[in-house]
Amino acid sequence: MRKVDPERQEAKRRQIVEAAVACFARRGFHSTTTAEICAAAGMSPGNLFHYFDSKDAIIQAIAEEDQRETAAVFAELDGAEDILAALLAMAEMALIQSTDQVYARISIEIAAEATRNPKITALFVVNEAQTKAALVALLKRGIDREQIDATLDPDLAATWLIALLDGAIGRAVMDPHFDPKAHAPMLRLMIERFLRPAAN
Amino acid sequence: MRKVDPERQEAKRRQIVEAAVACFARRGFHSTTTAEICAAAGMSPGNLFHYFDSKDAIIQAIAEEDQRETAAVFAELDGAEDILAALLAMAEMALIQSTDQVYARISIEIAAEATRNPKITALFVVNEAQTKAALVALLKRGIDREQIDATLDPDLAATWLIALLDGAIGRAVMDPHFDPKAHAPMLRLMIERFLRPAAN
Repeated sequence: MRKVDPERQEAKRRQIVEAAVACFARRGFHSTTTAEICAAAGMSPGNLFHYFDSKDAIIQAIAEEDQRETAAVFAELDGAEDILAALLAMAEMALIQSTDQVYARISIEIAAEATRNPKITALFVVNEAQTKAALVALLKRGIDREQIDATLDPDLAATWLIALLDGAIGRAVMDPHFDPKAHAPMLRLMIERFLRPAAN
Repeated sequence: MRKVDPERQEAKRRQIVEAAVACFARRGFHSTTTAEICAAAGMSPGNLFHYFDSKDAIIQAIAEEDQRETAAVFAELDGAEDILAALLAMAEMALIQSTDQVYARISIEIAAEATRNPKITALFVVNEAQTKAALVALLKRGIDREQIDATLDPDLAATWLIALLDGAIGRAVMDPHFDPKAHAPMLRLMIERFLRPAAN
């Protein structure tokens, strides 16, 4: 019997997910065939199906990767002294990441798929809920420390912060030369004016 | 020879576009067949092809309709006394319209198509440029009247206002019960804090 090496297994899965992301971003979820993903990943269909039994399963892996990354980003903010400053830095980082052309395209592709595939919707509802819960917790900590305006409802404020960053993805898709660095200062200003406590 | 009645012609075109929007929102652009659009519009393929020779041509009509609506919305603001107040009202209206489930789905569907179909990208780049130019002009008028913070770069500020409203579409897709009325006050607050001149 062949032994299963979990690290090797995980490396193979990542290799497939990365190949699939590139294919989906280039050709769309529906137009991408399993054969194309196999070619991009450099493996046989039989081998690929050993790891993922459908395109949906690959999207699920993409969503899970997103969840791990979100958790890691918020975990890093756990020790932040200044919550508002930490939030602004995180927003700038998210802007740079999400407006990468491949990331922007795959995000919109998956959002489109989520509008009609309940399995995909469910995955992204979970991701959205995770991001929002982490953001709400952070806003509440900021409010407790008087670093964030206490008159704001954390839940509603978090929704609009997510919308703001999500909306940047559309700008990158409309403009392949979208430069996140050029747009970051205005994003920071908008969030800062929104969240900072009124001067006494 | 049959006479062409332009009004009847236009009514037929609208009927097809509306049927196509419903089909695209439900099944996606790629999965929707011309036969389905014909069935939804209640006409024969021959009749449909008389008005539109491809699905791309129908999307073009959707984009043009969007342009007319945008122009009408900004034209209404031409006489506004208080630019900031007018902008806030417009943002709330845009929020309510864009988070309608059919509108939200078709928007994301077309954005996904725009990532890989240069003809569709070109249409939406034009729409985005139109909206941005109108918004920049409005911000400049507001700055001239000291109703909007003169330290803001109108071009960069307009981009983030568009991103903010665009991002609301994603929230509606993730949550079919998204209630724009419940989210409108926080949107208005965010925009107001962003744009209003600093108190002297």
